Parts: sequence; structure tokens; C-alpha cells
Amino acid sequence: MEHNLQQTTSLLARTPSALNALLRDLPETWTMRNEGENTWTVFEVIGHLIHGERADWMPRAKTILEFGESRTFEPFDRLGQRREMQGKSLDQLLDEFARLRSESLTALRGLNLQQADLDRRGQHPALGKVTLSQLLATWAVHDLTHLHQISRIMARQYQDTVGPWSAYLGVLQCGGHSSS
Amino acid sequence: MEHNLQQTTSLLARTPSALNALLRDLPETWTMRNEGENTWTVFEVIGHLIHGERADWMPRAKTILEFGESRTFEPFDRLGQRREMQGKSLDQLLDEFARLRSESLTALRGLNLQQADLDRRGQHPALGKVTLSQLLATWAVHDLTHLHQISRIMARQYQDTVGPWSAYLGVLQCGGHSSS
Repeated sequence: MEHNLQQTTSLLARTPSALNALLRDLPETWTMRNEGENTWTVFEVIGHLIHGERADWMPRAKTILEFGESRTFEPFDRLGQRREMQGKSLDQLLDEFARLRSESLTALRGLNLQQADLDRRGQHPALGKVTLSQLLATWAVHDLTHLHQISRIMARQYQDTVGPWSAYLGVLQCGGHSSS
Repeated sequence: MEHNLQQTTSLLARTPSALNALLRDLPETWTMRNEGENTWTVFEVIGHLIHGERADWMPRAKTILEFGESRTFEPFDRLGQRREMQGKSLDQLLDEFARLRSESLTALRGLNLQQADLDRRGQHPALGKVTLSQLLATWAVHDLTHLHQISRIMARQYQDTVGPWSAYLGVLQCGGHSSS
């Protein structure tokens, strides 16, 4: 399958402003509550997205381009957001995410990737061989998976408030899918 | 449960700009494809949200306040978006949704609802007795259910492009929940 990189980056570029429009200055009922034990708040999800910008997407793309399959990716610390969140407000996290995403996309454009580059393979610690194309597509769908999660975390806060309508609201039937 | 109306309207007010930031000028791969037979595109979801502003939320709120349980709500036409979509672009739908939502919230503020009003009951054609409080909470969670759906519709377009990572992406495990 041909991967249209412009299509991918057009989504990646919009995620920070969409989250900003949805979340900035929203009452904490929506943003600082989770779905129960061992689940994340919206605040924590933004911390996780920040950590991904620093430690996951572009670093792994560079690993593929420099080392191919000869160097396994650093495992991604799924709790790395704890450091990102410390002492920060949601507004600060939203700003930080926007800044880092913009830097990531500038760096990506700077690579001027061609189809042959997208086909290059790297070594994932659990999944085995993956292509640069798959990594970049995953970056975009990872944004969507967390938008999906955010809408569900928020909806849960009104699970009882909607009364009998809960039966009609798909998001309230979503049990979550692994951690997101 | 006490319903904090300001909390509800703060979310309702943000949905149009969040959708605008996410979707405007996005390549049609993301917005004009569905999840398979008898499913919606993102474009169609925005048409549905527009139809809800016209025919569902504020009209039903007014029915409760004027007639209480003595008048059953008009059934909501879940395919009413077809008329809204005809001959329109996604950008036009996004503008229309923002305009109608803003008008709805102005009308809602104009009602100056008190707790006693929120406790008033109406008659839903299928669910039976519901309160105005539940209706307004459902309006907000309905936004979230469609944000949840939109993120899933978009992710599906990259189901194959992400390769083996699909196992890790929660949104791709979501089978949908009834129609949204």
C-alpha cells in the first residue's frame, strides 16, 4: 500500500489545536478525573502524548534511517508522562505538546523522505520488523486512539447524569481497549 | 445528583471549534470515507450534529418546559442529516454547526434555568420519563459519542497502513457501539 505522507502529516499537524480547542479552560470535572483505578485522566493523556513526541516517534524514525534493523528501538516507557506532568497545569501541557509536535513535523519535513525511505525497516522490541511507513502511520492513529480515549474518559463523568439515555450513547458502551 | 449546568455548556460550547480544528481542509481520505456498509463518514456525522441542533436538543428542552410529561417528544430522525448534507462541503457544514450551536446556547442561557426547572420531566417516545437535566447532560455526551466515533472512522482508514502496530492501537479494536 502506498503511504501518502502528506495525508498523515496533515492530521498530525491538527491534533494539538483540536485538543486545545476542546480542553483549554474546561472545568476539571472533565479533565482531571479518570475512569477508575489504574486508568488515566485527560491531563495524563496529554502528558503521554508529550512523552511520545520526545521519546517515541521521531527518535524511532531516526533509528530506522540510521541503523535499519540492526538496532532495536528503545522500549517506550508508557508511564513516562509522570515526569512530563509534574508541577504543570493542563494549559502548560497543551502548549508543550503543540510546541513539540511542531518541532517534530519540522524535523520530519527536513528529512525529505522518499518512497524508498518509507520502505526501510527497523526492529521493534516486541513486534519485530516494521517499516518507517508503518511507524509514521501509527503516529497518526496513536493521536486518534487517544482522542477516542479522551472522549470516553469525559463521557464517563456523566454516566449517571444522562439517566436512561446512557443506553443510546455509544461512547458509554465502550469498555476501553487495552489501556486506551 | 446535582447537575452543574455551567460544566455542561462549557463542553457544548467547545465542540464546534474542536471539530473545526481537527477537520477543516483535512484530506478527504479522513473525512469522506466510512467504516463499511451502512456506516457514516465524518462528513455525515457533522450533518447529524447539525440536524440535532435544529430538531432535537433545544426543541425538546422547550417541550419539557411548556408541556411537561403531557406531550411526548417528536421522534428524532436519525437520518435527518441527509437533508443537511445535500450540496454542501464539509467546511460549510462545520460553519453551520458552529452557528447553530452558538444560537442554541444563547437560547439556553436566555431560559435562565433554575434547579427546579432542571428537575422537570418530559416524555420520551421510547425511554419514558426523563428530566430536563438528563436531556442537557445527554446533549454534551452526544457530542462526545460522535467525537469518539469520528476518531474511530478516521483510524479505520489506516487500519492496514499501520501494519503490526494495529494490535496496540485501542481505537482499531473498537467495534463501534450501535450506530456510534
